[in-house]
Amino acid sequence: MDIEKLLSENTAEIDFYLAENLQTSELLLETLYDSMRYSALSGGKRIRPFLTAEFCRLFGGKKEAAIPFECAIEYVHASSLVHDDMPCMDNDDMRRGKPTNHVVYGEDIALLCGDALITRGYEMAATNSAVEPQTALAAVSMLLKEAGAVGMMGGQEIDLLSENRSPDFATLMSMHEKKTGALIRAACLLGTMAAGIIDKNDSRYKAAEKYAYGIGIAFQIIDDILDVDGDAAVLGKATHADVALGKTTFLSFMTVDEARKYAEKLTSEAISAIEPFEGNEILSELATFLLQRKK
Amino acid sequence: MDIEKLLSENTAEIDFYLAENLQTSELLLETLYDSMRYSALSGGKRIRPFLTAEFCRLFGGKKEAAIPFECAIEYVHASSLVHDDMPCMDNDDMRRGKPTNHVVYGEDIALLCGDALITRGYEMAATNSAVEPQTALAAVSMLLKEAGAVGMMGGQEIDLLSENRSPDFATLMSMHEKKTGALIRAACLLGTMAAGIIDKNDSRYKAAEKYAYGIGIAFQIIDDILDVDGDAAVLGKATHADVALGKTTFLSFMTVDEARKYAEKLTSEAISAIEPFEGNEILSELATFLLQRKK
Repeated sequence: MDIEKLLSENTAEIDFYLAENLQTSELLLETLYDSMRYSALSGGKRIRPFLTAEFCRLFGGKKEAAIPFECAIEYVHASSLVHDDMPCMDNDDMRRGKPTNHVVYGEDIALLCGDALITRGYEMAATNSAVEPQTALAAVSMLLKEAGAVGMMGGQEIDLLSENRSPDFATLMSMHEKKTGALIRAACLLGTMAAGIIDKNDSRYKAAEKYAYGIGIAFQIIDDILDVDGDAAVLGKATHADVALGKTTFLSFMTVDEARKYAEKLTSEAISAIEPFEGNEILSELATFLLQRKK
Repeated sequence: MDIEKLLSENTAEIDFYLAENLQTSELLLETLYDSMRYSALSGGKRIRPFLTAEFCRLFGGKKEAAIPFECAIEYVHASSLVHDDMPCMDNDDMRRGKPTNHVVYGEDIALLCGDALITRGYEMAATNSAVEPQTALAAVSMLLKEAGAVGMMGGQEIDLLSENRSPDFATLMSMHEKKTGALIRAACLLGTMAAGIIDKNDSRYKAAEKYAYGIGIAFQIIDDILDVDGDAAVLGKATHADVALGKTTFLSFMTVDEARKYAEKLTSEAISAIEPFEGNEILSELATFLLQRKK
């Protein structure tokens, strides 16, 4: 199985819908829409919409039910990157080999662009007409919670406040569970909901949650390992950046070997969670692919 | 009838619910929640939640159905103010006699705070359990549209791009219809929906839209007039700021007398729209109050 090929096929498909959804006939709004397209269509592995598509498929949902949710999760993710890159946050000038949004459009438009992208993401979830109204309502409510103050945005706050403060392990875990974990969880649950499963006690809903937790934390551990152990040429960015910035990572608490074993354990728990369901091969393979990635 | 008293009573009530809704038991999130409370509970006339409450009452809805929608619209409004005040936007240090959010919490937290407030606002609308699920879904979908790229955020973009460019009258109108008009419209429609009316062809839905249009544009005209004709001591801010900033206003296209007549006409159209409905006195009075305000 070629996971990279599957990912790139899904990316091509989702890019089509994202581009279609970011058209305007209002001349006065062209700059805002340009900036939204610039960041929403700027590449990336598109792991999140792929998770949504695959959980929908795994649980017998239709592709057309997944697509609006795939767009939704990608918009929310893109919004967080636009705001994260701004000078008052991480102050990054480049992302994925291109100047960041505020470098191209100015900070004022970038701020609005992030606001408009996240709002459009929530709107795509709420207006998904290929699912039942109660499913769309459950989906947008869940997405709003996972993205908001108790989820991704809360994780960003913990990250900001942890700078140069040596957070303890529990704080580091809480930060990652929220900052990146919450959207990965939302992506898996959106796919599950696209298949009509909105009952939190359903074994399939719980399996999606467990899988999301495992790959979410493992993803971050591998990020931390690659920063000290990776190949800068393959990664496309300098290594040892975390140490240089005085950042607390998993490697502040364990050796590279221990961290790798921890990521393997989490990945194996993620795979076990979906094992009972026929057709789990792609998601199982994806978890292994993310564990073994070199970039 | 004492509109100011009714407004302040509703403000006290809505502040209670906003404060209750912004509690966290997670120590790590306290700063983010502090910043959200700081801006959501910072006073103001609270016109928008009052409109929601009154349209709900006018059309026979229950107060408890309106309250989550009142919180929702106020959060979205508060979020827009936090982001608007940031250095990369209007760069305001003071609002309502207090230092602005980024002055107190820093720009990074202020950016997240605005993101988290707007997300919480949408969430309050989606999770309103005092209305039918399809009503909550229609309400949050409408709110997301009015706040997003084709609504308030689009209006902010038009405003940014119009600086020092002398926009024509059509552009000025489009900017105001979106920038302030969209949320006033959303406020009136949320109240209408709280009363169970989600059909866009319902005469009550249409009446709410017409009323919102009239008072929204009139509100902006009065703002422009007060800037050249108001009493700085009553306003609590310097007059003639628009001219000093080279801003295009309604007075770039008409005299003060003509502008006042235009605002009167729009107000009278707003009042006419709700005249057929018994119990319209408070909303009629509110429109007149907003027309005659001195600050």
